[in-house]
This record gives sequence, C-alpha cells and structure tokens, in this order.
Amino acid sequence: MNESAAASPFRKRRLVILTEGCTEPVGAKTAACVIRYGKDTVVALLDSTQAGKTAQELLGIGGSIPIVARLEDAPTADTLLIGIAPTGGRIPPAWRAIVMAAIDRGYDVISGMHEFFSSDPEFAEEARHCGVKLIDIRKNSEHEVANRENIRPDCLRILTVGQDCSVGKMVVSVEVARALSRRGCDAKFVATGQTGILIEGDGCPVDCVVSDFLNGAVEKLVLANQHHDILMIEGQGSITHPRYSPVTLGLVHGAMPQGMILCYEAGRQAVRGMEDIRLTPLARLRELYETMASVMRPSRVIGVGLNSRRLSDREATEERERIRGEMDLPVCDVIRDGPDELVDEVLAMRTTRD
Amino acid sequence: MNESAAASPFRKRRLVILTEGCTEPVGAKTAACVIRYGKDTVVALLDSTQAGKTAQELLGIGGSIPIVARLEDAPTADTLLIGIAPTGGRIPPAWRAIVMAAIDRGYDVISGMHEFFSSDPEFAEEARHCGVKLIDIRKNSEHEVANRENIRPDCLRILTVGQDCSVGKMVVSVEVARALSRRGCDAKFVATGQTGILIEGDGCPVDCVVSDFLNGAVEKLVLANQHHDILMIEGQGSITHPRYSPVTLGLVHGAMPQGMILCYEAGRQAVRGMEDIRLTPLARLRELYETMASVMRPSRVIGVGLNSRRLSDREATEERERIRGEMDLPVCDVIRDGPDELVDEVLAMRTTRD
Repeated sequence: MNESAAASPFRKRRLVILTEGCTEPVGAKTAACVIRYGKDTVVALLDSTQAGKTAQELLGIGGSIPIVARLEDAPTADTLLIGIAPTGGRIPPAWRAIVMAAIDRGYDVISGMHEFFSSDPEFAEEARHCGVKLIDIRKNSEHEVANRENIRPDCLRILTVGQDCSVGKMVVSVEVARALSRRGCDAKFVATGQTGILIEGDGCPVDCVVSDFLNGAVEKLVLANQHHDILMIEGQGSITHPRYSPVTLGLVHGAMPQGMILCYEAGRQAVRGMEDIRLTPLARLRELYETMASVMRPSRVIGVGLNSRRLSDREATEERERIRGEMDLPVCDVIRDGPDELVDEVLAMRTTRD
Repeated sequence: MNESAAASPFRKRRLVILTEGCTEPVGAKTAACVIRYGKDTVVALLDSTQAGKTAQELLGIGGSIPIVARLEDAPTADTLLIGIAPTGGRIPPAWRAIVMAAIDRGYDVISGMHEFFSSDPEFAEEARHCGVKLIDIRKNSEHEVANRENIRPDCLRILTVGQDCSVGKMVVSVEVARALSRRGCDAKFVATGQTGILIEGDGCPVDCVVSDFLNGAVEKLVLANQHHDILMIEGQGSITHPRYSPVTLGLVHGAMPQGMILCYEAGRQAVRGMEDIRLTPLARLRELYETMASVMRPSRVIGVGLNSRRLSDREATEERERIRGEMDLPVCDVIRDGPDELVDEVLAMRTTRD
C-alpha cells in the first residue's frame, strides 16, 4: 500500500515515541494505540514535561513504560516515532533537534505528518549520511479513480463513522475485527489513518490522498482485502465536520459499506479544536450517514460505539442505556464493556444481508 | 493562488490548443470555454484527425479558428495548451512528442493534468534548455484546514452544483457573474477547476488538493474574494458521483453558500464515463444538496441551470417548462436563453437573505 508496509510487519521495532507536551489519552492517541495494539515494542515516551512518570499514569495503558526527557534515556530504542501532530503542520524547531539527534543515533524515524520528513532536505541529507530510513506514513501516490467494478458482494464491509475526530473509530474497528477473528471469522481490520497503518502494517492514509482520487483509493483498499469475509474499515472525521467532511464522504462512497457503526465520545459538546461549533446530534448523524451511503447501495447504522472514558462506571452504564433507548440500537464501549454486542450485530448481518 | 496566475492576466498569450482526437463540445470543453471566455488569442486547435475543419464546425464556437495537424501549421502561437485529459492520467507517447516539439519551438506549455509536466524529468530538462515555462495549473501546496473565522456575512456566496461532471457548472457561474457585473453589481467568478482558472487568471484547482485541506482551500478562496459583494463559485462533480463526491462536498462545506444553482444536461441518463450507473434525479439531488449544505448554515437551491445542447429549440423550451413546473424554480440554459432568470434570483437573495 505504501512505505509503512516496511515499518511494522517485516521487522519488530523498538520504539521511542515523541509525545512532547501532549502525553494524555487524546493528544497522544497514536502512542496509546501503538502500545495497546501494535506489534512493536515501546521502549519509552519522550516528553520532557512529564519525565519520570509512566505511560500507565498518563494514558491509562502501558504499565511501567517510562516517560523520558531525552533520547539518551531510552538507549535500547532503534526507531523514533512522531506520536503527535503540531497545529499548522510545521515541525517546531525544538522537534527538529530531536529528530536530528535520533538520526544521528542511527534510529529510523517514522512520521505520520502531512509535511514529509523524507522531503526535508536537512533530514534527508542526515539520514543518507547515517544510513537510516525516514518513513512517512502519509506519503502516497494514489492516482486512480473509483470504477465500481469487481466488488465482491459476499464480502461484508462495515465502516466506522463518527460524530467527530478522535472519538474511537479506529479502536472500535480493531476491537470488533479481533473479536470476530477470535470467534473464528475471517475478518480484517482495514486501516485508513496513520495509527491504524502503524498497527496493522498496511492500509492507506486516505486523508492525504488527492481529492479526485479519494474514492478510488478507498475502493482499491476494498479490492485488495475483499478476499476476507468481513472488513472492519476504519472511518475518519465526520460527515458534518467543518474541516474534514470530504474525507469521511470518500470513505462512505469509496467503501460502499453494507453496515456502519456510529462512534461518539460521551460528554463532548463541540467539535474538537473548534469550540464554537456544536456537534451534530447522533440521531441526525445516523440519518445523514444512511442517506449519503445509500446513494450508492443500501446501508444502515447497525450499532453505536460509545467512548465513555470521561465517565464513571455508573455514568457509563446510564449513558449506554440512554443511547440504546434513544437510537434503538446495540451500544457498547468496546474498551469498558467489550465489543460483543457489536460483534453479534455484524454476525447477524452476515446471515441476513441483502 | 497558484502558478496559473502567471498564465493569463499578465501577458496575453497566443495559444495552440491540443485536442487530438477529441474536438467535440464535451471532450474539448476546455478549448471551447477558453475560446468563449478567455483573454488569450486562440491561434489553432491541434487535432490531426480533424485537420482542415474549423472550431465553429466542431465546437459550435470559434468561427474560423483552424484545426491543424502539426505545430508548424500554427506558426504564430507562443504557447501550447493541453486541452484534454487522457484516461488514466498518463501522457500517451504521441503527445510526449508534441509537447517536446512545442518546447523546442520555444513555446510555453500549460497543462491541467494531475501528472505535472514540471515534474517530468525529460520535459523539465528540455524546458530549461529552451528557456520556456511549464505551467501546471493543478499544482498546489494547499495545507491549511478550514477555520470558519472572519467570513463576511454580507458577501453573497452562490455555488453551482450538478447532477454530473461536464454539465455546465462553470459556464453558468461565468455567465451569471458577467451578467451581474453588466447590471452594475460587484460580482466575481471564483474558479475551482483548470478551465475556470485559465479563463479568470486565478482560483484554486480543488480536485488536486490533499483531502484533509480541501474545505480549507475552498474557505481560503472565499476569504481572498469576499471583498466582492457576490461570489459565483464554480462547482465540481456531483454529491452523488461515484468518483468525485468528496470534491463536491468540500466545495459545499468549504464555501458555505447561501444559495446554490443546480446544473444538469438534458438527455443524459447515466454518469459520464460510467454508463451502468444511473444519475440521481434532480428533485432528489436538490434535497441532498440542501441537506448537506444546511449542516453548516441555511442554504437552498435557488434555480436550475439547464444544458440543452442536444435539444432542438422546441425541445429545449419544453424541457425548460417541464423542469420549471417539476422543481418550482427558475430554469434557464444560460447559452440559449441567457442567464437573466438566474440573475434575478441571485439579486432577490441580496435583498431578502437571512
């Protein structure tokens, strides 16, 4: 699919993850998910503002993985992973120094930023000199349009869709895919974002594809994976997101899912990073997703993925029951409750679908 | 906005337009529109399969502009414009020879293809050697997200939207903008595609923007032009197009139009280039556009742009009346009937809008 195919599956890496100033569950979601689901070993997180603490304390996962202040404090690493995206997409000067230091130490560098490290003259020259790889997960040369040919009707395509960015679409896709596999199904998690690609070792960074080729790139992902029985396709953004709605529609129209799982975070009122803009209510989103997906083929929302990380156990149970009643759909927090209710619904589609 | 800003306004060019094998109104729409609306002089069209005929005979516009078989037959030109896009996006070998010959003759080359001429080693080397410019209209480095800040509410934004590609959205936008100007309004045509940019001398090639930055690029166009009272914004594709729907949604959500004009070609049944896929009916499209646009701010379809090129005068009149009745909206073919009905509707929005 892209260069990242070289990152994970062919060699087990020892990662130090840069999370400078952002070591909390949402800002460092890449780090948290690589720890939770990845095949590579995470040696340390690099955040000089939190040095001395552990991943478990700050992210709620990762046990004793240390937060360190300097690369020298993670001497057994062999790769620096950029775990955060700075606002504006430009690399702050302080990070440049860290990247250069990692290259000088002989570490490969993996980045999911829009600004490609391999196109940065200084990084590229230093990497050549030190014999290390600069791996840009978002780099792609997708240039084919969708054709709607040779789609295998027996392959069940389930897309996670959301109320906003960073609500847990990737986590729901991974958890449901893994639970399906545990039940003996031939299910595949189809990654469409940088963290998903890091975890799975393949996929397509759809938000970095040229707009004309977005539906085509998603269709290509489906064609490449449809020998599996069930595809759990990672969604992005939201169909009403002021910034990223086209990416979401490209997934909906390129993947042509038979079913969708609607993901949200309890307690979030406004678009993340745009505090003046209210989120679209779930019931309305369900209508919009079903309407826009069904332009291509019949499609419906089959369940809700609740992210209840800000709630107590009691609050989470109440929220789950409330949404179950409101939406008349299975609802679960795949981390807190496990994904079984959603898995059952996917399996029900296998037997009853059109 | 991009390199094409250098193409039109600052120097009047003498164009030979490559339309090899495609000199008909839809396939050569770039040529037809540059002849109809452009500021440059069109010396000849280059199509060895039609040499000896005139533009008027093949495109219905352009009078005695000749179709020639060889560059040598258009000796007064100074620029080669690539007027067609080959399927698959790769330049056929026969065209490469024409481009090289044009460079050797000292012509600048203007291309709107996704594959950039300036990134082609052979073209770039030859252009350097011959001291000519390779101008890639689609080349852009848009990398900013939408912010929804500083949008001027008094600027009326009208977006053309469509049932399909190549139905006349650009033509409607240009004709209505020019008619508004003739009536003394401060109106601006905002170009979003290669032909529009060629004509207007500025704009943004939105279909070549990285997906994450599409809404942002469109918002940037609005911010750059909202000192005008009325923006006639060129639409792209269709919100139900299997290939290009994200580009359309990016325009709808990035421009946040108060009004939309729905464009279609009478007699077209299937998606252009995908003959198995039926077009979405106009009434349904109106609902979908209004629903998806109104997620961001209230927006409605204010009129219909009919492209009746395949119809006789009598058939066109019947079609116009039929759609007027069906949609309860002003309808006109801006070429056949003139744009007045749509212009009146835009002006009515100026006085009554929210």
